[in-house]
Amino acid sequence: MADEALFQFLHNEVIQYIYKSAEGGETENGRNITKLENMGFRVGQGLIERFTKDTARFKDELDIMKFICKDFWTCVFKKQIDNLRTNHQGIYVLQDNKFRLLSQLSAGKQYLEHAPKYLAFTCGLVRGSLSNLGVKSIVTAEVSVMPACKFQVMIQKL
Amino acid sequence: MADEALFQFLHNEVIQYIYKSAEGGETENGRNITKLENMGFRVGQGLIERFTKDTARFKDELDIMKFICKDFWTCVFKKQIDNLRTNHQGIYVLQDNKFRLLSQLSAGKQYLEHAPKYLAFTCGLVRGSLSNLGVKSIVTAEVSVMPACKFQVMIQKL
Repeated sequence: MADEALFQFLHNEVIQYIYKSAEGGETENGRNITKLENMGFRVGQGLIERFTKDTARFKDELDIMKFICKDFWTCVFKKQIDNLRTNHQGIYVLQDNKFRLLSQLSAGKQYLEHAPKYLAFTCGLVRGSLSNLGVKSIVTAEVSVMPACKFQVMIQKL
Repeated sequence: MADEALFQFLHNEVIQYIYKSAEGGETENGRNITKLENMGFRVGQGLIERFTKDTARFKDELDIMKFICKDFWTCVFKKQIDNLRTNHQGIYVLQDNKFRLLSQLSAGKQYLEHAPKYLAFTCGLVRGSLSNLGVKSIVTAEVSVMPACKFQVMIQKL
């Protein structure tokens, strides 16, 4: 529980810091999201290296995605992804019904506009992890009712 | 192990980010240290609230310091402080012989100058925790041989 809190508090501080140090309008918001995403990317790269140190080689893309949904998610967010769907053509949708980094926000609709900044780091985290496993992707997130959210992973075929 | 890594990687990213976004000389370095320290302060405030939720009331200052050295340090850094000394007049020296946030740096002397930025967040963490327990303090850190380091806590009498 303490570990979780440490990560959560630091994550919040990072968001606050980035948003405070760059005051501005809509363009700035996009830039901040990118910064958070990039941070997540590098953390994901580092993490996946540790996590997969002793695991068997992955069979295929789906096998990798399952690892992200189960082992990786459990390590980082203390729960598994609730639902994984795919169109078998390179698009995966990971649904988390109680996403940890949103669960401390009030579920009211008025905070929905703030959700993207709490998801950017995690999008990067997934993209960085996949990248170090040799899978190039684009990861986006979407919230309709907090604290549930969906991460969409689009695999970029080489 | 995974949790540790998550915190460590994010902590490193924060340092990199702050140092990259503010390029400059010596004054800037001081300002960056302050930023890291302030982040640590707020994280410490949040953490100590969680950690002490179910603990008994502290007897005195020394009792608080022991809690920081044992429970708090174990939660955050996965080990206890190795040595706690005090002059019984408000100065405490906490020695960690293998400080986790330094242990991934090479122990060579040439990296010693980079040590302060890896300690600033933790100084703030301790100051923030003590602050929320009603103890105002100044916390500084000192490294002679990595990865060992000493945190000096000077209690500010009200």
